[in-house]
Amino acid sequence: MSKIFNFCAGPAMLPEAVMEKAQEEFCNWQGLGVSVMEISHRSPEYIEMAEQAEQDLRDLLAVPDNYKVLFCHGGGRGQFAAVPLNLLGDKLDVDYLISGQWSKLAVDEAKKHARVTETSVLSETAEGKVSVKAAADWNVNAGAAYVHYCPNETIEGIEIFEVPETGVVPLVADMSSTILSRPIDVSKFGVIYAGAQKNIGPSGLAIVIVRDDLIGKARKVIPSIFDYKVQADAGSMFNTPPTYSWYLAGLVFKWLKEQGGLVEIEKKNIAKAELLYNFIDSSKLYRNNIDKSVRSRMNIPFQLADENLNALFLKESKDANLLTLKGHRAVGGMRASIYNAMPIEGVQALVDFMAKFEANYA
Amino acid sequence: MSKIFNFCAGPAMLPEAVMEKAQEEFCNWQGLGVSVMEISHRSPEYIEMAEQAEQDLRDLLAVPDNYKVLFCHGGGRGQFAAVPLNLLGDKLDVDYLISGQWSKLAVDEAKKHARVTETSVLSETAEGKVSVKAAADWNVNAGAAYVHYCPNETIEGIEIFEVPETGVVPLVADMSSTILSRPIDVSKFGVIYAGAQKNIGPSGLAIVIVRDDLIGKARKVIPSIFDYKVQADAGSMFNTPPTYSWYLAGLVFKWLKEQGGLVEIEKKNIAKAELLYNFIDSSKLYRNNIDKSVRSRMNIPFQLADENLNALFLKESKDANLLTLKGHRAVGGMRASIYNAMPIEGVQALVDFMAKFEANYA
Repeated sequence: MSKIFNFCAGPAMLPEAVMEKAQEEFCNWQGLGVSVMEISHRSPEYIEMAEQAEQDLRDLLAVPDNYKVLFCHGGGRGQFAAVPLNLLGDKLDVDYLISGQWSKLAVDEAKKHARVTETSVLSETAEGKVSVKAAADWNVNAGAAYVHYCPNETIEGIEIFEVPETGVVPLVADMSSTILSRPIDVSKFGVIYAGAQKNIGPSGLAIVIVRDDLIGKARKVIPSIFDYKVQADAGSMFNTPPTYSWYLAGLVFKWLKEQGGLVEIEKKNIAKAELLYNFIDSSKLYRNNIDKSVRSRMNIPFQLADENLNALFLKESKDANLLTLKGHRAVGGMRASIYNAMPIEGVQALVDFMAKFEANYA
Repeated sequence: MSKIFNFCAGPAMLPEAVMEKAQEEFCNWQGLGVSVMEISHRSPEYIEMAEQAEQDLRDLLAVPDNYKVLFCHGGGRGQFAAVPLNLLGDKLDVDYLISGQWSKLAVDEAKKHARVTETSVLSETAEGKVSVKAAADWNVNAGAAYVHYCPNETIEGIEIFEVPETGVVPLVADMSSTILSRPIDVSKFGVIYAGAQKNIGPSGLAIVIVRDDLIGKARKVIPSIFDYKVQADAGSMFNTPPTYSWYLAGLVFKWLKEQGGLVEIEKKNIAKAELLYNFIDSSKLYRNNIDKSVRSRMNIPFQLADENLNALFLKESKDANLLTLKGHRAVGGMRASIYNAMPIEGVQALVDFMAKFEANYA
């Protein structure tokens, strides 16, 4: 049987080496005779692991010392609420830049607390491709409590590589689906957050990287587990954290370091994305309508010229052990999510299948 | 080497059979060739598992049809905030019954939104033991939006078996450390919630059982992931749920059914608790100062008459593969948490050790 490759957008595949290690030590972690999920988060063994995981993440992203790293409950959607509740202070206005469905969904939560200015940053090229305006043209409101954007939209497959200059207004980024896929300059951001279930670990965990001066201004109505100050003061252990997810995230961070860190991972991600986009662009059956400058390296949606072939494509790809290629219902067609854990062999297998499918049916 | 028994208060041990099954299928769930944590929560395979887990929980607790069962992010502390935000409606007053540290901690969160009346339900027996007043004497405020209590206090080792009659005022119970340890009459409650990490599964998940008429009154400032209506309408999948925890919870529910359900589990829990309490009561070295009527079956704190022996007790018990017996810093001494997953052999091993230790040193 051919190897299985899983293109799920999230919860996504985790690195094979990580899963094998986690399986091996599932019932007996560090020789304790019990699972890491069965021990207290306040035990010395757990705390040592948790602190090392944080340090590894700091190393990978070169997080400056004036930022806290938090391991939180509630995933990315939890942070949709936590961001305004933590950062508004006594201000009312916030800016949300819209590049797709996820940046739009974040607005719904902010509207509960703030006056939201929504600004689309999308544009269209002369060839009719979807693109993103230059960051210099994003018109950020200087009086806003913060500016929020989503550098990678999983549904549309749009990735914004440019980081806007927002002056004194803190820049907040939902990096759920791009974090750890390439180096970033953390110092340009006020808050970076990410749901874990794409490039970090299992769902249920969110990572928050927050600049010190933005901590301690939470509104009174904030649930304490979302208060950056409460969690920063408690080392993310104000309440019992999602301990198993934190552990698995730590294994993923170690694996990333073994891969050579984010510089090397970015090279691999570029190679993987180019392999698939180049094939799509060269084919007559498949197309992707995103401008090359903002094509996502993580989530690659593509449509078949003949929609009647969709069901057959999904059936045959599944039979070929290429799983979860159905596109999001909002855009239809197909989507291949190729996060860090996807080896290039998986992308090659997909391209081979797509070529064969095209030869057979188109 | 003797078998390891883990008395951690939480995250606590899970049933051995559950852990073995989870390890076996860790990388290949249901023959899919991938882990259950690597598949979409919207895939048919995941949804079938998730719905079965809910049904098994409903069966175990005989949850009436007019209650929703939610699988939520944020653990028990998340619900400390979610409860007032969901249930206050246009009321201001809430009643919190205080029986120990956890019921007290819930108040801190409620005070952000409500006028809280705190009423201690503790009493002292003629022999100086800590007890709990009869529920008829709890003086519930008829104008309160709800009455909150914690039927099992893990730190003090107090369990309240009587369920108060609160008339039209909804009764809310933090059952984190007692849920599924014995049958309960769900119809007496407005909301039951529980962090998972004692009797359900890994940390990061909370179970909420909520009566239909209490859904849909959430305050505007509530984070959507905590809104009972939002999550009930979405089958707990408004956002990506903690999928792996849900899966493990499902395995635990199946295991409980195999044990004969809660009637049989209660018998075992009574036998385990009696074994340890009877030994403590018969000893000269160990003591427990909780009145028999409200002694916890799940968390059994005990003190050594000679505090200087504490360190030695902890060292020798660990050497004897009896783990995590140190008491909470608030009460000192020792604590044995013996949730559903602890077999009576573990309690017997502890009693044997305690007897030997007493013979050697006291």
